[in-house]
Amino acid sequence: MSSKSPAYQANALWQKQPKVNAELFALTYGALVGELLHDIEAPAKITEELDRMGHSMGVRCIEEFLAKSESIKTQSFSETADLVKMAFKMFLGVLPEISSGDTDASYRVVFHDNPLALFVELPEGNQELEYNQLLAGMVRGMLEMLQFDVNAKIVQSQLRGDEVNELVVDLKQVLQEGAGEEYQDE
Amino acid sequence: MSSKSPAYQANALWQKQPKVNAELFALTYGALVGELLHDIEAPAKITEELDRMGHSMGVRCIEEFLAKSESIKTQSFSETADLVKMAFKMFLGVLPEISSGDTDASYRVVFHDNPLALFVELPEGNQELEYNQLLAGMVRGMLEMLQFDVNAKIVQSQLRGDEVNELVVDLKQVLQEGAGEEYQDE
Repeated sequence: MSSKSPAYQANALWQKQPKVNAELFALTYGALVGELLHDIEAPAKITEELDRMGHSMGVRCIEEFLAKSESIKTQSFSETADLVKMAFKMFLGVLPEISSGDTDASYRVVFHDNPLALFVELPEGNQELEYNQLLAGMVRGMLEMLQFDVNAKIVQSQLRGDEVNELVVDLKQVLQEGAGEEYQDE
Repeated sequence: MSSKSPAYQANALWQKQPKVNAELFALTYGALVGELLHDIEAPAKITEELDRMGHSMGVRCIEEFLAKSESIKTQSFSETADLVKMAFKMFLGVLPEISSGDTDASYRVVFHDNPLALFVELPEGNQELEYNQLLAGMVRGMLEMLQFDVNAKIVQSQLRGDEVNELVVDLKQVLQEGAGEEYQDE
């Protein structure tokens, strides 16, 4: 692992972050989902709400994150894959694997350990609920601030019996050419 | 700091815990409180709800926590102060100061850094909301499982302009004499 690799940098960043117990986080996130389950009937609507919350967290976090991960480049969409990799490590302590998507405007983020879902079993009748959608929303929010309008979709989840957790990021459009660059220069 | 002191042990335990970013935790807890604000009008009711959630987390966490913090004794109420001290460190990464309460059946837990309340400002009109009540609920839940029925009350909060955060724990009754001991022996 070279000292410039995203994995190395991500680990160095992670060491410096203030942290809390992952169990407390999982229980708190569980309480949040539970509160939504209590208020909203349709699982699809809950997923939407988690996506919205994640989006707002991503928008909120990106500036500080970029300041901390100085050398990450995000001029092109494909370069944002490294940013997502580092963000997973910095926020969740988990380093995902990134692989190519079906097109150049797409990549896949695969992770095993999932701090959101410690102790979680989806209740009967809520198999449609995308419990990990917060992460998809965060990725969407972060990339939007870099002017990349994306679809971020959970396509595999261990909570539904899949072997891994997988998030696919698809570029819909670049909102403003070069804006990601300017953001970096600030 | 002796190698048997609660502070030393708490630190050793903390090092071994799986963790997530404190910022992500604060934002998630903020989303939970926001969701409650959205659903419930009365701040006192929200505080009650946070207390209930904390209680259920405390009940859930205590067994594993005791298994990890082997040498902590909890036969008498006053001994539970060390447990609370260690629990704060293990879950929040924050080591509080403990001081005597007004009677033998009471102690005070004072802490400065508060991972729950990063970036938080109480909205106008919600000054009555006890944002940190989750922690009071957790303490109440943990001690209840050790057969100590307590009042746990936030009496100072930096969110309301106090210099520190302070939680007072008051023993109401011992639920079943000696039960804390047995629990430890399991």
